[in-house]
Amino acid sequence: MGPIMHFQDELKQKAAEAEEIILRYLPDKKGSLSDAMCYAMKAGGKRLRPVLMAGTYRMLGGSEKVVEPFMAGIEMIHTHSLIHDDLPALDNDDFRRGRLSTHKAFGEAMGILAGDALLNYAYETMLKAFDLTEYPERVVRAMQIVSDKTGIHGMLFGQSEDVENEDRPLKEEDLFRIYHHKTGALLAASMAAGAVLAGCPDETEQALTAAAYDLGIAFQIRDDILDVTATQEELGKPVHSDEKNHKTTFVTLLGMEKAKDLTEEAEKRASQVLSDYPESRFLVELFRYLTCRTA
Amino acid sequence: MGPIMHFQDELKQKAAEAEEIILRYLPDKKGSLSDAMCYAMKAGGKRLRPVLMAGTYRMLGGSEKVVEPFMAGIEMIHTHSLIHDDLPALDNDDFRRGRLSTHKAFGEAMGILAGDALLNYAYETMLKAFDLTEYPERVVRAMQIVSDKTGIHGMLFGQSEDVENEDRPLKEEDLFRIYHHKTGALLAASMAAGAVLAGCPDETEQALTAAAYDLGIAFQIRDDILDVTATQEELGKPVHSDEKNHKTTFVTLLGMEKAKDLTEEAEKRASQVLSDYPESRFLVELFRYLTCRTA
Repeated sequence: MGPIMHFQDELKQKAAEAEEIILRYLPDKKGSLSDAMCYAMKAGGKRLRPVLMAGTYRMLGGSEKVVEPFMAGIEMIHTHSLIHDDLPALDNDDFRRGRLSTHKAFGEAMGILAGDALLNYAYETMLKAFDLTEYPERVVRAMQIVSDKTGIHGMLFGQSEDVENEDRPLKEEDLFRIYHHKTGALLAASMAAGAVLAGCPDETEQALTAAAYDLGIAFQIRDDILDVTATQEELGKPVHSDEKNHKTTFVTLLGMEKAKDLTEEAEKRASQVLSDYPESRFLVELFRYLTCRTA
Repeated sequence: MGPIMHFQDELKQKAAEAEEIILRYLPDKKGSLSDAMCYAMKAGGKRLRPVLMAGTYRMLGGSEKVVEPFMAGIEMIHTHSLIHDDLPALDNDDFRRGRLSTHKAFGEAMGILAGDALLNYAYETMLKAFDLTEYPERVVRAMQIVSDKTGIHGMLFGQSEDVENEDRPLKEEDLFRIYHHKTGALLAASMAAGAVLAGCPDETEQALTAAAYDLGIAFQIRDDILDVTATQEELGKPVHSDEKNHKTTFVTLLGMEKAKDLTEEAEKRASQVLSDYPESRFLVELFRYLTCRTA
């Protein structure tokens, strides 16, 4: 190794590696449907889920290409959820990452179909992993994890809870449940699938799943905190977060200090789990970075 | 066997068997999302795809339960496509099979999420097949077929072509391409997956895939024909089909007689393929029934 790399540079490099893999697995078919899928996939973003998956896989000694279709697949599922979240019937967002959201660029019907097609293509892509390993049973288990955490026991359940509670004041446990499913589930899928593909025992899979859910909560509360501080900066004065909109967050529910405490506690619990593994340095730093980030 | 069963009774029995399997594989989770999924799945219908899959599997000597999660899975994918097709941005249908469409009964946001969740749950369900067989490689291949025929090379591509050509006059080859993908692909997936699960050689899979695509074309043109004759009966007088709406069909393009010829030719080609298999009686009758049906 050369000079010690600053963590943010290291993360950038890992994200670039994930990016290259994601692009390689995109469909090369012509036509509006594929164009809309690729438009959404090429919008950039942190590539957090594939980075987390690869990080877990490497931490546990994995070194094969079998993880790559899963890295692409989990990002396709995440992007599917963003496309559908932006639709008029859901969050009704015309922009994402500084450009038109997919349904604004390609029409609403094509936005719906492109989201569907990305979810389906994630499975087409993950199925390619069977050709890249001597351990098909690991691929089966990893696919079971990803599908379970994507659907009615995971992310999509969280989205439906979000829709149902849109105009209702939420209690702490409601918000926790929504964050756990809507954000935590795909992070848990990323770590658990990475772990299973590396051939880890069940206890490791379970411990890392719990750590990922803690990361999800910490990450999402950090979002709530940044939401308030960004608004304060924008306006040049302190505001109560509920002046901005009626959305319930951990900050509106518990106040800024308690929200910060919760983030720290969740991050500590997650890092404690990671400390059991000798090669956990990258993930420990990633967890700290994600829960202390300022943007 | 008792007395010779009339084919329609036999088909009813096969559909009831498929129904029982489909219901068994539905999620038993509480909440609006699962409720919306089950509402759509329990709307009835012919259960044609699972019946076709089981018929192919049995014709080739398959006798295990491994086909059952695939029967449920293909019907979930079909139902996913119906829910999303009915959305305002696509066909904007408030009713399906005599009751409110899913997004009218549960709201548009929940309609979108229920469609997503059914597509995902189809994969969760098919993955259960690994526990039901000594031949995991057959399950992998069957999943590859289903995902390929569902996505951007199959049904979803057909839907996107349908959306893109909505207000354009279509040529014969355009219409053929749309029917091939939108209807043919899932029928092909049903037969090919059934065949592969039964352990057939590649040539059989390919021959039956071609037969299923022919069935799809014949089935869809039969729809076009029934569309016109139903309108005639309704109005009590002959009409030109293009008086009814501006939709291009094989009848508007080629006239009634040529459309009937095309249906017959496609059905004949498909039956010719089936005649290679000694146990094909049920499928041959099913093909004939579907392409000559009067409702």
